[in-house]
Order: sequence, then structure tokens, then C-alpha cells
Amino acid sequence: MDEPKETPVYKHSMPVQIRFNDVDQYGHVNNNAYFAYYDLGKQDYLMHVLRVNYRTSEVVPVIANINADFIIPLFHGDDIVVETRVSHLGHKSFTLQQRAINRATGLEVCRCATVMVCFNQRTKQSADIPAEFRQAIEAFEGIASQS
Amino acid sequence: MDEPKETPVYKHSMPVQIRFNDVDQYGHVNNNAYFAYYDLGKQDYLMHVLRVNYRTSEVVPVIANINADFIIPLFHGDDIVVETRVSHLGHKSFTLQQRAINRATGLEVCRCATVMVCFNQRTKQSADIPAEFRQAIEAFEGIASQS
Amino acid sequence: MDEPKETPVYKHSMPVQIRFNDVDQYGHVNNNAYFAYYDLGKQDYLMHVLRVNYRTSEVVPVIANINADFIIPLFHGDDIVVETRVSHLGHKSFTLQQRAINRATGLEVCRCATVMVCFNQRTKQSADIPAEFRQAIEAFEGIASQS
Amino acid sequence: MDEPKETPVYKHSMPVQIRFNDVDQYGHVNNNAYFAYYDLGKQDYLMHVLRVNYRTSEVVPVIANINADFIIPLFHGDDIVVETRVSHLGHKSFTLQQRAINRATGLEVCRCATVMVCFNQRTKQSADIPAEFRQAIEAFEGIASQS
Repeated sequence: MDEPKETPVYKHSMPVQIRFNDVDQYGHVNNNAYFAYYDLGKQDYLMHVLRVNYRTSEVVPVIANINADFIIPLFHGDDIVVETRVSHLGHKSFTLQQRAINRATGLEVCRCATVMVCFNQRTKQSADIPAEFRQAIEAFEGIASQS
Repeated sequence: MDEPKETPVYKHSMPVQIRFNDVDQYGHVNNNAYFAYYDLGKQDYLMHVLRVNYRTSEVVPVIANINADFIIPLFHGDDIVVETRVSHLGHKSFTLQQRAINRATGLEVCRCATVMVCFNQRTKQSADIPAEFRQAIEAFEGIASQS
Repeated sequence: MDEPKETPVYKHSMPVQIRFNDVDQYGHVNNNAYFAYYDLGKQDYLMHVLRVNYRTSEVVPVIANINADFIIPLFHGDDIVVETRVSHLGHKSFTLQQRAINRATGLEVCRCATVMVCFNQRTKQSADIPAEFRQAIEAFEGIASQS
Repeated sequence: MDEPKETPVYKHSMPVQIRFNDVDQYGHVNNNAYFAYYDLGKQDYLMHVLRVNYRTSEVVPVIANINADFIIPLFHGDDIVVETRVSHLGHKSFTLQQRAINRATGLEVCRCATVMVCFNQRTKQSADIPAEFRQAIEAFEGIASQS
């Protein structure tokens, strides 16, 4: 997974509740559960920053690729927060960069990059990132337009 | 859970694939996963026997109560089948009786009764069981009408 | 499900985070997810009130029966808390009574009773409730011994 | 995700049962469920080809990175098989390459590469791939040693 060139700033942060049945027979949080944690941050970002409505918006972002690093094992009882930012804003796609931080240690326990491609639900084709999504991301992240 | 008075006949049977992450840190299949197994049988029964369409049908069955007995622990690698029947057909509700059988031992490992109430999606009220559901159940189960 | 004769007092309460993938294709929280919510309360009660250690304790409680009422549908974004109490303390088994409350409305959205039977992990037989579990429950719930 | 240079041959294949609650509120199989599907193939490969025993083996493979492409949406009722192979065998790590094929269309619906690093459970350090794992992989895949 590509390393960011400078220290990234995460403005979106979400506490995650680890569930008993996230833990597998080896006593660690199973890899599957991490993706549910990332989804909590992802959905909140899409709903509250981009204000995507999958039922009514003509163009919506869909997941094309997920690339996840597992750094430190997670256990039941760990207290984590998932941080989310847009690390790349292209023409038809953007990248959500995420990481989970253990609040007791301050350490990054895992990180993930998700490439989301804009998709027109009517024409069933990929589509340019709508202007309102682009502006919302730029305003939230405080970045200049890259298009 | 009420015991059936005579040996019930299950005409609907569905093999279930146990997943690695169904197993909890104690090495047993977690109680949560059982309900996903029952759902596999339940959805298949509702779709193929009752031919319920939750998107288009005005009246649909919704779960009111689930009563589940855990008899023998399940492990990763066990080969099970979930059997489903309608054990009670009332006016507004019916009961799906289910059990899982370990195919290697022939033993019943768990059982479940689910009370489903018919619900009118337009009026948001409970509703009588539609005639087409009642007839489909009676035809499939080979039972005489109880209404 | 048996109704308690007087208003029960719940001293154990736990906020639950609803996940995006708890929601099924009908837009409601799927029945499976409710059992993960109950487990959050259950595990916390067992660990912090009974101080059960499934790895080291000779006698541990295992689930024999779950009886769950679905009262009001749950949606992504709902803010709920799961409350847990011991409603019955027998010789070999006890009952955990649970309910989820929507914090915005104050309404009970679902409830569940779980019968847990004590099991000796060495002899593989059911066992009397250990005195330390009984005392811990009585002290926490403020009930007189029923044995 | 790096594309293989020539058509890869998958000798390990596993049918996967899609569950009702794998489907999210948009009617697609949720991204989380894909990782449970990959795990079914992964665990079977680790248990039956490598004969890993996480309880007794001193050195075991653990997941370091997962890189997954989502190609064609999956729906409830789709009939898929997950194929698994070792695409790279290094000194301390190896890569499991996986894909799911829709059996009705023959199309690849998604693919995934998982980097697994060998880990010594006693010393809590990364470790060389044990000779028995290497030989088992080479024998199964029919590849010459790369070390």
C-alpha cells in the first residue's frame, strides 16, 4: 500500500464498538470485522460529508478496490477509533484512506485505502465525480481542486 | 419451547455451509451464526413455497418472536442441514419450526420456532394471512386448513 | 415469553453501535444483528458481574435457550442501549432478561430471555451454579437467594 | 493490484453459499461478506494443503495485507465458487491469490491477494516459512522452489 508522502491529517473520526463475535477462535478480532469497522467510518463520511443518497442520487460512489494493512492484532476490549479522509480525488474516482487507532496506546493498529468509482445508476456506466461531491470533499478536507 | 405432539415431517431441507468466522473464541459456532443458518432455510421457504416478494407484495410476513434451543455444540467442519416446516397456521400469524441435523451423526443439534405475523406494508397494520400464502403452505405441507 | 409480574429494574446498561451491514435489503436491522447486540450486554454482564473466565473456570454458563420478541423495527442511525438483568436464578440455570431501548423515544424496541445452564468443562456435565456466581448475581441485582 | 503475467492455474476451488444477511440495503452483497468468502477458501487451503494447526504449530501464517478488487456486483441467489492459489512464495511471506467465479456466467466477479507472513507464536517474531509449508505448497501448486 502506498505510503502518504507527508503526515496525513484526518478530520473525520469515529469510535468503533468491538463485538464479542468479532473475535475468532484464535482470540483475535477476525480480519472480516475490520472491514465492518472501516464501513462505519466510510458510511458516515459518505452520508455526512458527501451527503450521498443511494436511493435518490443519480450518481453514487461504489467500491472498486480495498487495500488493507493489518499492523497490530486487535482484541475484545480494545478501544479504537476509525479515522477517514479523502487522500486522492481523481476524475471518476476518489480514494478513502482510513486507519484505526488504539486509544489506550495511540498506536495505529491497521490502515486501509478504498478506491471508490462514481457510477450512474440510470445509465449503469461509470461517471465523473459530481461537482457537489468534489466541492464537499474539498471543503471538508481543506484541499485545492485537483481537476 | 412447545414440543410437537407427534413426530413432525419436514419437507423443506437446506444444506448450510459453516464459515470460519462463525466460530467464536471458545471454538464453538457462536449463537449468532445459528440465526443466519435458520434464515437460509426461512428465506428459501418464504421465496419458493410462499413466493413472498417483499418489494411488491402488499402483505408480507415479519418476524415477531424467535425461540431457539441450543442442544449440541457446533464446530467448524460440521456438516449440517436446516429443515423447515410450518407447524402452526393461525389467522394473522404462522409459525416456522426449524431444526439443524448433523449429517454425520443424524442428531438434532438445535431447533427454533419463529412466529411470523402478516403485515400490510401500505396501511402499516397487521393483516390476515393472504389466501395465496395459506393455500401455498397447505399444499406444500399437506395439511388441512385450520381457519 | 413470560411477562415479569412487576416492573423489572435493570442495573446493567450498555450502549450499542448499529453497523451499516446490520441492515438488510429491506432497510431494517436484520434479526441476526439483534443477537449480536444482546451478546454485547451478555458478555459484559458475565465478565464484569459474574467474573466468568471461559479459559480458566471449571464451571461456565452456556446458552440453552434464547427467546426473543421483535417489537419495533430498528434502522441504521437509531441510538439504542441494551439492558440486562438476571430474572431467574435456579439450581443449575439462570435466566438473563434483556431489552433494547431507543434512547430518542424511550421505547422498548425488542426484548430477549436467555436461559444459561452451568456446565463443568472438565466432566462435560451440567453443574450447580457455583456459589461465587450466585453471590455475585444476588449482590449485583439486590435479590435474596432463591435456593 | 498486480496482474499475473500469465494465466494462473487454480487447483483449489470451493463453492460458497451466499447468505440472506450478506446482502445490504442496496440489494448487493456487502463488501464485508466477500472477505468471509475468501476466508472459506483460505482456511481450507491452510488446513488441507499446508496442514497448519494454529493451536499446536510454533510457526503460523498471519494476514499482513489484503488487496481486493470488486469487479461485478453479487446478488442473493448467485452461485459462486472461490478459487485459491499461492502466487508468490518468499522467505518469510507468501501470497494467496483468490478469485470468485459466477458458475452461471463463468465470469470472474472479484479477486483478492492476501500477503501472509509467518509468525513464531513462542518468540512473537516473524519467521522463515517452515520447510514443511514450503514443500506442501510447491507440491500442491506444482511449482519449483523460489528460495
